[in-house]
Amino acid sequence: MERELSVVGKRLPRIDAPAKVTGEAKYTVDIKLPGMLFGKVLRSPYAHAMILKIDKSKAEKLPGVEAVITSEDIPVKLFNSGLTDLLVPEEIAKNDPRDQYVLSNKARFVGDAIAAVAARDRKVAEAALDLIEVEYKALPAVFDVVEAMKPGAPKIHDFANGNIARHISFPGAIGDIEKGFQEADVMIEETFNTTKQLHCPLEPSACIASFDSIGRLTVWSPTQLLYLARHKIADIFDIPEGKIRWITPFVGGSFGNALTLRAEPICIALARKTRKPVKLEYSSEEQFIATQSRQPFTIAVKMGVKNDGAITALQGKLTANSGAYYSLSGTTTNVCMAMFATLYRCPNVSVEADIVYTNIPISGGYRGYGNPQAMWALEQVVDVAARRVGMDPVEFRLKNYRRAGDPGWTASLPIESCALEECIKLGMDKIGWREKMGGTKEGVKRRGIGMAIQRHVSGTQPMQMTHSNIMIKMNVDGSADLMVSGCEMGQGMFGVLAQIAAEELGLQIGKIHVVNGDTDETMFDDGQHASRTTYVIGNAIIETARQVKQQLLERASKILATRVDDMYVRDGQIYVRGDLENKISVEDITRRATYNFEGQGRNIAGKCSYVPKGNPPPYSAVFAEVEVDINNGATKLLKIVFAHDIGRAINPTNVEGQLEGGVMHGIGYALTEEYMVNGNNGVVESDSFTNYKIPSTLDMPNVEVIIVEQPTPSGPFGAKSVGECGLNAVAPAIANAIYDATGARVRDLRITPEKILEELSANIL
Amino acid sequence: MERELSVVGKRLPRIDAPAKVTGEAKYTVDIKLPGMLFGKVLRSPYAHAMILKIDKSKAEKLPGVEAVITSEDIPVKLFNSGLTDLLVPEEIAKNDPRDQYVLSNKARFVGDAIAAVAARDRKVAEAALDLIEVEYKALPAVFDVVEAMKPGAPKIHDFANGNIARHISFPGAIGDIEKGFQEADVMIEETFNTTKQLHCPLEPSACIASFDSIGRLTVWSPTQLLYLARHKIADIFDIPEGKIRWITPFVGGSFGNALTLRAEPICIALARKTRKPVKLEYSSEEQFIATQSRQPFTIAVKMGVKNDGAITALQGKLTANSGAYYSLSGTTTNVCMAMFATLYRCPNVSVEADIVYTNIPISGGYRGYGNPQAMWALEQVVDVAARRVGMDPVEFRLKNYRRAGDPGWTASLPIESCALEECIKLGMDKIGWREKMGGTKEGVKRRGIGMAIQRHVSGTQPMQMTHSNIMIKMNVDGSADLMVSGCEMGQGMFGVLAQIAAEELGLQIGKIHVVNGDTDETMFDDGQHASRTTYVIGNAIIETARQVKQQLLERASKILATRVDDMYVRDGQIYVRGDLENKISVEDITRRATYNFEGQGRNIAGKCSYVPKGNPPPYSAVFAEVEVDINNGATKLLKIVFAHDIGRAINPTNVEGQLEGGVMHGIGYALTEEYMVNGNNGVVESDSFTNYKIPSTLDMPNVEVIIVEQPTPSGPFGAKSVGECGLNAVAPAIANAIYDATGARVRDLRITPEKILEELSANIL
Repeated sequence: MERELSVVGKRLPRIDAPAKVTGEAKYTVDIKLPGMLFGKVLRSPYAHAMILKIDKSKAEKLPGVEAVITSEDIPVKLFNSGLTDLLVPEEIAKNDPRDQYVLSNKARFVGDAIAAVAARDRKVAEAALDLIEVEYKALPAVFDVVEAMKPGAPKIHDFANGNIARHISFPGAIGDIEKGFQEADVMIEETFNTTKQLHCPLEPSACIASFDSIGRLTVWSPTQLLYLARHKIADIFDIPEGKIRWITPFVGGSFGNALTLRAEPICIALARKTRKPVKLEYSSEEQFIATQSRQPFTIAVKMGVKNDGAITALQGKLTANSGAYYSLSGTTTNVCMAMFATLYRCPNVSVEADIVYTNIPISGGYRGYGNPQAMWALEQVVDVAARRVGMDPVEFRLKNYRRAGDPGWTASLPIESCALEECIKLGMDKIGWREKMGGTKEGVKRRGIGMAIQRHVSGTQPMQMTHSNIMIKMNVDGSADLMVSGCEMGQGMFGVLAQIAAEELGLQIGKIHVVNGDTDETMFDDGQHASRTTYVIGNAIIETARQVKQQLLERASKILATRVDDMYVRDGQIYVRGDLENKISVEDITRRATYNFEGQGRNIAGKCSYVPKGNPPPYSAVFAEVEVDINNGATKLLKIVFAHDIGRAINPTNVEGQLEGGVMHGIGYALTEEYMVNGNNGVVESDSFTNYKIPSTLDMPNVEVIIVEQPTPSGPFGAKSVGECGLNAVAPAIANAIYDATGARVRDLRITPEKILEELSANIL
Repeated sequence: MERELSVVGKRLPRIDAPAKVTGEAKYTVDIKLPGMLFGKVLRSPYAHAMILKIDKSKAEKLPGVEAVITSEDIPVKLFNSGLTDLLVPEEIAKNDPRDQYVLSNKARFVGDAIAAVAARDRKVAEAALDLIEVEYKALPAVFDVVEAMKPGAPKIHDFANGNIARHISFPGAIGDIEKGFQEADVMIEETFNTTKQLHCPLEPSACIASFDSIGRLTVWSPTQLLYLARHKIADIFDIPEGKIRWITPFVGGSFGNALTLRAEPICIALARKTRKPVKLEYSSEEQFIATQSRQPFTIAVKMGVKNDGAITALQGKLTANSGAYYSLSGTTTNVCMAMFATLYRCPNVSVEADIVYTNIPISGGYRGYGNPQAMWALEQVVDVAARRVGMDPVEFRLKNYRRAGDPGWTASLPIESCALEECIKLGMDKIGWREKMGGTKEGVKRRGIGMAIQRHVSGTQPMQMTHSNIMIKMNVDGSADLMVSGCEMGQGMFGVLAQIAAEELGLQIGKIHVVNGDTDETMFDDGQHASRTTYVIGNAIIETARQVKQQLLERASKILATRVDDMYVRDGQIYVRGDLENKISVEDITRRATYNFEGQGRNIAGKCSYVPKGNPPPYSAVFAEVEVDINNGATKLLKIVFAHDIGRAINPTNVEGQLEGGVMHGIGYALTEEYMVNGNNGVVESDSFTNYKIPSTLDMPNVEVIIVEQPTPSGPFGAKSVGECGLNAVAPAIANAIYDATGARVRDLRITPEKILEELSANIL
């Protein structure tokens, strides 16, 4: 018998909304400390250059300047700015290079940090930057991965021959790829390119760092990975981790941008030098050029298919552009390969990747974390394959997709649940698949529909058992303080976790207060990544809440003269089953427990360390309808239908919001966002919102979200994840729709009118 | 075999010292919030008056004024400003009147709060006070308890006939007092008077209150009782307790002054009215007149003694001056009675008390909490009695004092340990008792010695089982966050608790970080009172630390291949007994536990709710040597020897500091501090440090502190308390010394030259 839910599943308003609409929510930039200095960073104008000499004397003499630092003032320890190394199994992580210093004595991209200033105000700091005299020796630079791998290409890091940072063979390869190709009736070979995509959070990177009189460092920063950021800073600056207090106030969006260190190391170096609090805020331009963005791949796919639609072999050869430093390139590439290789059943699979340095800004993790790149290639190849064997692409997918019981994203993890068929069925009905498939085929404006599917994760298990440590303490008014690490970055974490806590404790949502974002207050959690929050932290909260509930019930059982097992809690009341009159309020119990000075007093509370027991994958089916003007190649996106296999929607409104936001990212990836680097000098030309076009509300088509709820056994109230799922398959669905409308197959992101026209003219020839 | 201690017992520097000497420590007044208003209070110039009308229109019109509030704007709920009602058993507390409003429509003392203003800055707020027009109807006032009880005296509270707020019979009365008197060979009857004494903390009362957009209230205030203050405010303002976050920054001394609400209710009322953050800082004058001070008693003692020195009967009749409101008068009176009645063995004991309202400022709790008043009477009566039966006062005490196994301060609680004899022996040697006893007897400057003893509590058990709730979480560097409610008010709590945690965890002191003073971060604790911190919270920390240590050892046992019972932790290393080479560091264990993503990951942590199991009383013996000029009555205090039965000194330097500070308070009580109320109009004339004289370093005699360590079974590492003990018996020791020197018995505090001369002339007559 399914339990009747009273808080979970409800469309509740966001609990962080009042603070945000009133402006009372504090972000890092809002924090002001007495005597705080302001930092600024001097960045290289060269894409590749040796720094021969820095004369900082003039800058230091400027009144109000308190410190000018260069590579000589910073720790000599190489690091990787990605925060997740700790989570990666050692056999994989050991090959990830550490290639970055806080400040560099060699510039490797336009915008590389060379020096920094701390001054009494921003203007002085900016003026001081102009007074730092740097003597550069410009070096030849390379921006393209193919050029970078050629013999004689400029060498960006000494250790990386051919600028190849790392070669990775997908560890889940199976079968014999050549044999698989031989067994195929039809071979498809296609090569795809993806672009860098910028996260564009509303809040640029910012940091405040302050050392106290005993050397304890407090950092305020909008990181997604509170404890891992603390770990990395401790390592770079050789400070014991317990001597660092990391505070993450509200975060103004991140989408993966804050999975790396950004302003923090330089800010901390300035605070260490001056022994005063320092604030370092990135400008909008710095946010564009000096933080990581989505890793671009070239993906060469070779797929063998039988005439009945069975896939016999799948091969991927990936080349990733890491940019100037390695950062998260290893893990994003691994995820890309895993998602590419394991969405469909296929007995012979092989994926290889080269991660290549170039003199462009750093690549890293962005919502989807390799999955959108994989789907861009795979979900078009599948479309091609289906058409080649004369199958409806939907039927082709339904035949081949890996489903419940099949191996998941790693071979050892069977898929716990899958509602993809239901998603596809509902999505097809909503978009009108059977009626519209095949396109309009006449006139200048051609309509077509396309679809794509995706499967993602609800955490990183079993590769990484990222434990979550929770505490819940009851107040005497029957309310609960939920103490959880992590960050509310707009995704609605506070509300979702509060709903889970409220449901399990039997309280109303208003009785949950989230205490969050401070390593002094909360225990270890690895943070917001891999769409893990609802599934992993949610389960940890349930386990903790059960401890608390047990204490409540034990005390109630004495008063109500009933066995613990015969009671339940709902809406703040503890009831005896089958006897609605025999009850006592949680408030009454907590008050009697706390304000008990006769020997049985206690603050009712629970704590737990929870290790995830599974990783049920959420599936989605995305349907796109487009209208393409075949005269000018202009694409009008008419409609997106997005059906998502969520397991359980803790808050359906929030799930819809997450998916709509993801779709928006996917549309930008497909159609509007273009990261442009000047091929002569490496200058990023898309360095603002005027020349890097993210979709606005006016660019959004009608998006219909369908939530499919088939509770998954290991999920909190059956929930799987949603965070990253929205965007993974949007771009290939649009590309497939354009093909359906026009016959033009665009293989390189972003989809431009020019590329469509080029494909159309090629087809005609 | 006693365990060898490595952190406890060491003279370690205070861990809060660096923050304090650098000025980095934040007190409530240091907190600034954006848009914060400043509050000011309008106080009555009359000692007793009806408020007929308040015209606030002119004040409200002053630019910058945001609110003017009077009794009409505040909750209509009567309350008691003392914070400990919750702790007092219901049968006792139910008779404690609630007699106060946040702002009154009847003034009951000069300084009673009538109205308050919130304005954009202090100057505007002050100017606005002058514009509030109050029409008072002056009433006859009464300042003396005897006058107040007379028929026809002005009635201060309607319900209190004869201005008697409450009559209390000491519940521990035993025997038949009249029979006891009949059995006596010698009867002593003496009446003593004590004075109001001001706590004089360096930090006057201050508060900041801020409501957020969902009505959650944050309060910053230097209270000693974080959670109880939150409870009382919740009750007055009808806010659920979980919707109040109470933050107590560093506290600049308190000595019991912050056992009541002070600036908080008015500050919160202003914030509620304006919906903006409000800061209310008491001026030094307000601190003197508008916060509670030590309750003055008249104590009539009747003691019956056998010729062999056995006490047959002890009777006390107390009259307490509560001032204008009741506040803590009930509990201080109860403690006074208990301490009076139970220091000595006596089969027939009776104590009665009347608590009387007068039109002077409020009385309440001050370090010692009734015990100094009791000792002022009792320890002089004992001196008189000893002399009357021809015994050395020391011998008399040694014959009669209640010792280990005897009933303690409540009949149900046997005395767990007692090292008074050792204290007396060491003190006698140090002061030169046998040589000097009897005084110099000639010349103008007469020398004499006197002594007194005291026994205090290590908490409030068994009357109040004040549980303490602790959490300890380990950091990956092998350091520990000790999460404990309560306040560092200069007593050295942080250091003492950190030493206890370090010792039990086997860590160095620098590895303990105290997280404190915020109801969001820590669990319930009733706070700093009754000298309970070391004993109750210390024991709670030990229990929590044991949980943590168990987890550390369990993980270590797998690595070292040893049973948990065969290991121990010291200086951050886990050793196998008898094999110093077979070890692993705590850091190694915590790092492997936290950075474990293979399924056994956890943040090692512990939490517990601890209910005290005992209340071992600390004893002290105080010896004073004086020189009195019999021509002018001037007393020169030559020396104080203070021997204290601490059980175990967690930090001997800190114990000495606490005792020296207490002795200073006792000397002020005895000789320099005089609270003066104008008998005509009730104006407090001792309203500043120029007319209220606390001892300075120049007034301090040579103070020798002797720490006697006989570990008590239930104490943390054997510790008993020290906080309040230093002052309880200082004044009677000095009075007894003056008698020894001159034959003058001064019964009324403070001891002035005039009173000595008066006694001397009376003796001559």
